[in-house]
Order: sequence, then structure tokens, then C-alpha cells
Amino acid sequence: VTEPGQTTRVTVEFEDVDSYGIAHHGRFVAYLERARLRYLESHGLPVYPHGCVPVMYALELRFRKPARLMDALDVSVETEAVDDFTVTLRYRVRRAGEVLVRARSVIAFWDPAGDAPAPVPELFRNRMAADQVGRDDEKDV
Amino acid sequence: VTEPGQTTRVTVEFEDVDSYGIAHHGRFVAYLERARLRYLESHGLPVYPHGCVPVMYALELRFRKPARLMDALDVSVETEAVDDFTVTLRYRVRRAGEVLVRARSVIAFWDPAGDAPAPVPELFRNRMAADQVGRDDEKDV
Amino acid sequence: VTEPGQTTRVTVEFEDVDSYGIAHHGRFVAYLERARLRYLESHGLPVYPHGCVPVMYALELRFRKPARLMDALDVSVETEAVDDFTVTLRYRVRRAGEVLVRARSVIAFWDPAGDAPAPVPELFRNRMAADQVGRDDEKDV
Amino acid sequence: VTEPGQTTRVTVEFEDVDSYGIAHHGRFVAYLERARLRYLESHGLPVYPHGCVPVMYALELRFRKPARLMDALDVSVETEAVDDFTVTLRYRVRRAGEVLVRARSVIAFWDPAGDAPAPVPELFRNRMAADQVGRDDEKDV
Repeated sequence: VTEPGQTTRVTVEFEDVDSYGIAHHGRFVAYLERARLRYLESHGLPVYPHGCVPVMYALELRFRKPARLMDALDVSVETEAVDDFTVTLRYRVRRAGEVLVRARSVIAFWDPAGDAPAPVPELFRNRMAADQVGRDDEKDV
Repeated sequence: VTEPGQTTRVTVEFEDVDSYGIAHHGRFVAYLERARLRYLESHGLPVYPHGCVPVMYALELRFRKPARLMDALDVSVETEAVDDFTVTLRYRVRRAGEVLVRARSVIAFWDPAGDAPAPVPELFRNRMAADQVGRDDEKDV
Repeated sequence: VTEPGQTTRVTVEFEDVDSYGIAHHGRFVAYLERARLRYLESHGLPVYPHGCVPVMYALELRFRKPARLMDALDVSVETEAVDDFTVTLRYRVRRAGEVLVRARSVIAFWDPAGDAPAPVPELFRNRMAADQVGRDDEKDV
Repeated sequence: VTEPGQTTRVTVEFEDVDSYGIAHHGRFVAYLERARLRYLESHGLPVYPHGCVPVMYALELRFRKPARLMDALDVSVETEAVDDFTVTLRYRVRRAGEVLVRARSVIAFWDPAGDAPAPVPELFRNRMAADQVGRDDEKDV
């Protein structure tokens, strides 16, 4: 499978395992973020842009199989869509090639000075639009 | 607004605030969980059922406004649907009555012995079906 | 026992319980912080002072008994010492009156502009010195 | 410097950075744990021993300099002492060779069935005693 985006390796640490003995579902939100930051960084996009902050607008996760302590997971991320106010990213978390979690995040931008929404910065629009893969044909996420 | 479910008060702690100065989106996953556990507990449903564990199957969050340090948030939860294999819960996170986050979680059950999906335990089915409010009329979440 | 400082109630949440089935030791660092912020706030001391940030300089914890899911814990904090560069706080975490964890933190101040240590702000010095209880007679922490 | 123990590389992730813009002190507790698990694993020592769980008995950290987003940190760990009831480990967290954090943890064992302390399992005693480096000459931690 060709990955137009980028893949980040994460390890399920003891801190990630809950009292059911599996990687807590909430930890995957952090795993996606690690992949997202590296993806933005590889496109020259700053974590702390001038005049606005990227904020999570919507987040969807589908879990197929649990992960366990010390599992090595590969988190891939790619740009699904970019418009004036949001950037949509799609993720897959795989263990040895098998998809454990599918996810999608919609990121908006916030102007802390005005305490109001802000447009997607031009640098983000241009770089992510160029990398855009289009909407997945799968129904959800 | 009548709340058929239950509401839990949480406070945005320093540990929840990220380097953008707002409550990190991932922390809301934990806030939902706190409300969910109290909701289950109030229905006499165990956190650790015999022979299976509740696992997150799908999770959707919509963020409308950021929360800040020491904000008092009210997390309401109610049962939207129950079937043989999943339980669907709907959440609202409010600050002073204003909705900041809407969310939905679909919970499935996992048999650790067989490493396979398990049906919803009868106790969960009965108690949550009795409390069910039906699908929201809002399109998403 | 008279408490010259202040006490904060925390609950052991599902997110705090590790795969040994007990409250993870690292979570107590956050519990101490919750108590510390409320203690500072009750003395009119800001979380974000002008020109410097409070940083952890030293932290010691002694664990006597494990805590479990939904335990209600009382975290007390008091000022042990204040000098030009550090503030020393002492903590006790109790469950139904029984001490589970003892701790001490030494807080210093950092000047982000100069990337260098900063003196304790005068407001902190004065307010915390007035509240100071002196060094505990217990050998450790 | 010869390292008789073992070194683990960790990265300061966005989830680790607090609203002061530095790696939160509490996150270093998790960093130590990641190094400790790999150290135990490399000595053939299980995370989940039969009949008891390793629990934190005492933990001390000394912070010299803040770490920042995406810093690569090297966490070294070595055995300082082993006795009938505790194992003492010593840690250094370095960035590009410079020590940022020094730490020591004392680990005890807990018998969940009896809800009481348990002796250090023989396998842990033997393997860690063989690796023991002795008490550091530094006064603290």
C-alpha cells in the first residue's frame, strides 16, 4: 500500500495500559497527535503558528482490535481535505500491517487575542492542499 | 432541558491544559469516561464485569469552544441505543449551561480469554435499554 | 491534627488506575499539583506570574499503601520553607484519615526570556513566609 | 562515562508539554518508567510477576534544566541496591549528554491477594544484585 502521508512508530508504554490490560482508547488520541506533529513538521508547518492556534474541531475514532503493552504501532496520517476554515486528516494505526484503529480529525484555527475562530493560515492551506489525497471511499472515518 | 441520564462535574486542572493554554482535546475523552463510570455505577453496572471487559468501539467528539484552567464543566451522559453487541452513549460537556463539546461513544465487549468480541452482558442490556432515550435528531454526534 | 495549610479532595478515576489495578504512582504528582494550585490561589498567588514561571526543582514521594478506583483522597499542603530561590511545600495524601502518601516539593522560578533561574517573586515570598510551618520532625519527606 | 545499566531514548511529545511551555515534571516519572521496564526486560524480569506486583515505595527527582517539545532525551537506569524488601534504582535524564534530571526510585512488592507487602522475588534479587553498582557518592539522588 502506498502511503501518500507519513508514518510514525509509537510503542504502547506501561503508562498507556489501563486496568483492563489493554492500551487505553484515550491514548490513541495522543498517538494520532504524535504522527500529526511529525507530518506537519515534515511539511515545514509550525506547531505554534503566529496569531492563531490549531484546535481540534472534530475527532472520530474506530477501534477494531486492542493493543497491548510494548506493541509497536505504526500511525499513518494524510490530508483528506482543506478548506477556508478546516483541515481534515485521516489516520490508520497498524500493528504488523494490521489496522487496529482508523481515525479522522478536523482541525480549525483559533485566534486567542480575539477569542474567535480564525481562517486556516495560508502556509497550511497551500502545503496541505498540495498533499491532499481526497476523501476515502470508506463510509465512516 | 430535562436530562434523562446523569451529570458529573469536572474541573479543568493544570495537568489538562496544553501549551496552547487550553484544555487539551484528549482530556475530554477522560472527562467523558468519568461521567460514564458514574452513570454505570448509578445503574448498578460494574466497571469490571465477569468474563468480559467493556472496550471502546467508536468515539466521536465535536468541539465548539475551548475550556480553560479551573473551568467547572458539567458532563451529561445518556443511553442512545443498546443492541446485542454495542451500547451507544451520548454526551454533552457544558460550562455554565453552554455546550462546549458534544460526543458519542459506542462500547462493545471483549472476552480476554478467547481474545474475541463478546455480547453485551444481560445486566447491561436490561438496565441500559430501560434508560434509553433514542437517537438524537442532530445530524452528527 | 491542625492543618495550617489547605486540603483538596481528589477521586481516583479510571484514567488513574494502572494495569496492576492500583492508582499509578505518577498520578499522585498530579494530585499534589491540584492541591498546590488551590493553596496558591487561596493565598492570592497567580499560576502564571509575570516574568517567570514556577518550575519543579525537587520532588520526593513516599508511598505507604496503594489507592484504588473511586477512592476519595484528601491532599493537604503546607509551606515548609521559603528562601530567595526556592519554596518548599509538604504534602500528605490521606484516605479516610489514614496517610497513604507523604511528599515534598521544592519549587524554583525560571525566567523564560533569559532562560535562567529567577528569584522567588516578592508576592510569593511574603505570602508563603507568613504561612510557613517549619520543617517537619519526621526524618524523610 | 561507562553506563553499567541501560539507556532508553524518549522524545518530549506535545502531550508532555505544559502551559508553561516546558516538559511537565510529572512526565519524567513516565520517562523513568519506560527506561525501567526496558532495563528489567533486558534482565529477563517480568512486568507482571506471579503472586505480587512491583509498587513504587519512594521516588525522588532533582530537576536542573527544563526540556522542550521534541527534545530527544536519554534516560539511563542502574541498580543501586537490592535487599529483602526493596530494589533501589538510579536514573539520569540527559539531553545531548547534559544531565537535566537525576532520580532515584525504591521499588517494593505487594501481594494483592493478602493486601500486604511481599519480599522481592528471588529472580529479581539475583539478577539485580548481580548488576548492582552501589550507592552513588553524590549526596542526594
